[in-house]
Amino acid sequence: MLRFDISISLDGFVAGPEQSEENPLGIGGEQLHDWALSLEAWRRPHGREGGEVNTSSAVLEEVQEGLGAAIMGRNMFGGRGAWEEYPWDGWWGDEPPFKMPVFVLTHHPRKPLEMNNDTVFTFVTEGPEVALGLAREAAGDDDVGLSGGAQAAQQYLRAGLVDETQLHLVPVLLGGGVRLFEGLGDDLPELECVRVVKAPGVTHLKYRAAG
Amino acid sequence: MLRFDISISLDGFVAGPEQSEENPLGIGGEQLHDWALSLEAWRRPHGREGGEVNTSSAVLEEVQEGLGAAIMGRNMFGGRGAWEEYPWDGWWGDEPPFKMPVFVLTHHPRKPLEMNNDTVFTFVTEGPEVALGLAREAAGDDDVGLSGGAQAAQQYLRAGLVDETQLHLVPVLLGGGVRLFEGLGDDLPELECVRVVKAPGVTHLKYRAAG
Repeated sequence: MLRFDISISLDGFVAGPEQSEENPLGIGGEQLHDWALSLEAWRRPHGREGGEVNTSSAVLEEVQEGLGAAIMGRNMFGGRGAWEEYPWDGWWGDEPPFKMPVFVLTHHPRKPLEMNNDTVFTFVTEGPEVALGLAREAAGDDDVGLSGGAQAAQQYLRAGLVDETQLHLVPVLLGGGVRLFEGLGDDLPELECVRVVKAPGVTHLKYRAAG
Repeated sequence: MLRFDISISLDGFVAGPEQSEENPLGIGGEQLHDWALSLEAWRRPHGREGGEVNTSSAVLEEVQEGLGAAIMGRNMFGGRGAWEEYPWDGWWGDEPPFKMPVFVLTHHPRKPLEMNNDTVFTFVTEGPEVALGLAREAAGDDDVGLSGGAQAAQQYLRAGLVDETQLHLVPVLLGGGVRLFEGLGDDLPELECVRVVKAPGVTHLKYRAAG
């Protein structure tokens, strides 16, 4: 199963306006992630102490459990252009929080990159379906997580390949930025809401592909 | 209290693409209202028999109760241009389902229109704040309901005049059409989610102005 979850504003943005290398979340975009970053369930796997336990904790733990591989777009991995010209090993330092095989969609070929924990980045130039095939093989009986960003998510949504989408709906209005549900073409996926959890500062809405 | 509720698609549209006089909800827009139109709680006040009772029934009844007046935009009332040139008494026939004073925002002056039940349409050319003042006076201790459409709602949201917003979030993607949260300016309202109800084919999300 391919699972996708993302924090989104009430007006449909997953990043605020004026995104840049210095401010990848755009103006106000950090508000979308406050609910998660405050949680012990987020801080622990990221090597940080403290944090809250609330209704969102179980939702976040569920998101993190049962995953055998991840897929992400080039924007989320970061860097730009050809790897030889602009060396870049991701935002996360030597020990990225994934600890599993991660398949990165890119137009620029590159050898796999093994980090100091079980995270291995494999760079896939043959498109989203090939990346999904590789990720499924790596995951075995476990699920594959689609980590974002918006553009990669749109590719999979458009192709009808996402089995479960969970929106973490944050009651802020960003007024502009990067929309999740855009450019999905005419053959729009049909969805069914299977669970709703109201938590402090966020509502978690889980959807499955219908039919 | 000024209350507003509206059915909205997962991608943020309150009407589908290619709206026209013949198809005011746009392509696919009727799907946004299936949850309500199937309910006994909607059919009864509209003079129709039958209908379902489910988790949405209490939500819809709550929306309809405790209102002493309504406000709507010109698009929702219908018609076009000056009233003398294009006579139009609304979409609802002799007995509109409101049964209360309704204040219609318009640029074209017109005398009040009394219908065959307690519905009286008053046409207000002095803008949204004046309409709200008149509606509050008419409502007395009861609430004022903002009936839409999107443009009228945006005027009130932008001015920070809406006390309670309930979104009936329908898990369809329309891919285009009329967005609710658009053109709200820079001084965006802060919201707090106060209740979530998951029902067949729709999730009801109630927000209050924060602080």
